[in-house]
Amino acid sequence: MNEWLEKTLKELNLVDTMDQPIGFTRLGYSVEELESIKAFKKVANELDLMVHSDQAGNTFARWEGATDFPVVMTGSHLDTVESGGGYDGVAGVLCALGAIKRLKEKGFQPKHPIEVVCFASEESARFGVSTIGSKSVAGILDKSVENVQDRHGVTIKEAIESTGLNWSNIEEAERPKNEIKSFVELHIEQGTQIEDHRAHFGIVRGVACPIRLKVKATGMAGHTGTTPMGKRKDALVALAPLITYVSQEAERLSAISSKPLVATVSTMEVKPNGMNVIPGYIELGIDIRSVDDSLKRQMADKIIQKCTILETKFNVTINIETLVDNPSILLDEKLTASVKAAGEQLGYISYEMDSGAGHDVMNMAAKWPSALIFIPCEEGISHHPKEHSTISDLQTGVDILTAVLQQEAGE
Amino acid sequence: MNEWLEKTLKELNLVDTMDQPIGFTRLGYSVEELESIKAFKKVANELDLMVHSDQAGNTFARWEGATDFPVVMTGSHLDTVESGGGYDGVAGVLCALGAIKRLKEKGFQPKHPIEVVCFASEESARFGVSTIGSKSVAGILDKSVENVQDRHGVTIKEAIESTGLNWSNIEEAERPKNEIKSFVELHIEQGTQIEDHRAHFGIVRGVACPIRLKVKATGMAGHTGTTPMGKRKDALVALAPLITYVSQEAERLSAISSKPLVATVSTMEVKPNGMNVIPGYIELGIDIRSVDDSLKRQMADKIIQKCTILETKFNVTINIETLVDNPSILLDEKLTASVKAAGEQLGYISYEMDSGAGHDVMNMAAKWPSALIFIPCEEGISHHPKEHSTISDLQTGVDILTAVLQQEAGE
Repeated sequence: MNEWLEKTLKELNLVDTMDQPIGFTRLGYSVEELESIKAFKKVANELDLMVHSDQAGNTFARWEGATDFPVVMTGSHLDTVESGGGYDGVAGVLCALGAIKRLKEKGFQPKHPIEVVCFASEESARFGVSTIGSKSVAGILDKSVENVQDRHGVTIKEAIESTGLNWSNIEEAERPKNEIKSFVELHIEQGTQIEDHRAHFGIVRGVACPIRLKVKATGMAGHTGTTPMGKRKDALVALAPLITYVSQEAERLSAISSKPLVATVSTMEVKPNGMNVIPGYIELGIDIRSVDDSLKRQMADKIIQKCTILETKFNVTINIETLVDNPSILLDEKLTASVKAAGEQLGYISYEMDSGAGHDVMNMAAKWPSALIFIPCEEGISHHPKEHSTISDLQTGVDILTAVLQQEAGE
Repeated sequence: MNEWLEKTLKELNLVDTMDQPIGFTRLGYSVEELESIKAFKKVANELDLMVHSDQAGNTFARWEGATDFPVVMTGSHLDTVESGGGYDGVAGVLCALGAIKRLKEKGFQPKHPIEVVCFASEESARFGVSTIGSKSVAGILDKSVENVQDRHGVTIKEAIESTGLNWSNIEEAERPKNEIKSFVELHIEQGTQIEDHRAHFGIVRGVACPIRLKVKATGMAGHTGTTPMGKRKDALVALAPLITYVSQEAERLSAISSKPLVATVSTMEVKPNGMNVIPGYIELGIDIRSVDDSLKRQMADKIIQKCTILETKFNVTINIETLVDNPSILLDEKLTASVKAAGEQLGYISYEMDSGAGHDVMNMAAKWPSALIFIPCEEGISHHPKEHSTISDLQTGVDILTAVLQQEAGE
């Protein structure tokens, strides 16, 4: 199995070695994502699975059961951020395929059909809109995003249609409630809690969905050499303290609360961004996460208050737009408990935790009993070329998924 | 004259009205700069001046004198920053042409030839390299800049050659010392000192050349939702205090020093700049100016010290590159005194000051007696669509330049 995992990991990542200093770039609905899906189809065919795609670009490899439905579903995604790692998403697809291989080798006969899914465009890296594929399957995609553009001006609609699909048919990707029994996703942790607690896998209770703010400050551009310090309306100087504040206040709030909170100024645009011009306009993107929605709201409100103070102090105009404000998602208690028990029966130590990152499972959980398994990734490094899970961690994932699928599909 | 100034101002700016909400964009060696030079040639021809260009793209409109040389030269530039104003550069060319018109109308016969110059590519907006035209005339252009690129990847060499010139001949633009008697530039102040001191024009003693630093911080990218606050190496959080420090320290140093100092974090690049990724890499551009070179050095040293503290505190790696470090330029005392006297004899109140911005005159001053006249621009707003000097200010400029040229070319 180890050899098969190593080989298939590289196949899904379209590389000969996982040592890629510039990382992996497979944006949603890009040629690179399609290539990776093609590699997935090849592996699925080798395992005698039937592959089909839907109108959102999701791909399913199906093992027929004694009954036609409901389906036991597992999987994740194959797209990445820019210069990301080779495990985020891929690990879940790979371990699902590995579990199928194991079950086939054991001669298991599923009662329920099993489907391994590759959800399309999970990352928000390209359009700022995440989990387009799984939202479509759950029937919760907001079609008003069709004209949201990537940084080259390509809209979501255009990107999807460039892969041969028809945007106006995307609703057809929705699956009826009675067609699916349960969904289990496996993903890399993208943090160090499993490692810190000397566990082997994480079992996730809730997914922290973000509040995302766009803070825009308008001051006054001017010549850097001729505008005295006291006469400036420098938008960058006005917002610099906000960067420090977001970091310090998130750390403070997190320390005094029962649930963790993280907040990040992650994007920034400076205009006109010329060496001899005072910055007249700044845009900051802020990402706030906690499974405790009220703590998240508290942090956002503090940022808004801080902006009011900075606006007056630095004589600039600050506007704040809320891009995203989704409540956090709790996963299915019964399924989660049974996944946890399955892992522990295999001798693995579990750690119960929350997920700071959004995953496809949060959309599936809106409609079907769903669970999320984390496997460790070294030093918590993710969305980075150095992202790495060991073959032993992937093996743990295969072991647990094998047990879970056997139980779910055999019942 | 007022009507002619208004009409010619618009002609040189290639517009029908100076009210341009998105400003003026004529980058160095662009099609737009060439169009403006074409408009200059038309006006020069109407004034019966002979126009010629050199191998650096500078354009000269010449009024022959009784002797062949040395030439009395005046003028400025026609290129702008992106979305800049219509007076920076243009005012100096316009007032020079206006002075010629006035002298011709008076029947003045110059002993020395007079040349009105439009120096090519004065602004650093396109390449980060300023005053390419006047450096070439003074013979101090560093030819190693040939491969410096604009943000579209076009090199200086390619840009110059796209206008029909040959980079390998650019040295031919140098003028021998004995060919030029003196150079007087008129420019908008780009500040409010003239206005603050209730004067009509500024007479400049020295030009503050910048120290420019590029500060690069490398931390570690990571997922914004899964990396606890205490485990981050956020490059943006590490450099945010530097933005505040540069502004506060410049204000403090300036207040306790005999010469003013300004310092600005003017450019910024954040990588990967994705909503769900912690900034792993930041680049800041810092522009420091004062005619007091030691004060400028002191500010740069303080920035370097501050970076050492931030590097340790935030566990990131900081590298600092010095892009530019030029000593400040003192203008010709005798010529400056005579320009000042000429203005005062016309009843205008002068204010002696330093220039925080670099101008073509600083290169000319390296070789020939040179002076710089400032006219006011409203509220000191410059490099901005709202940049504005009144027709009355331009008239003041014409009056003073007329007197100066009459004196310099008549002697």
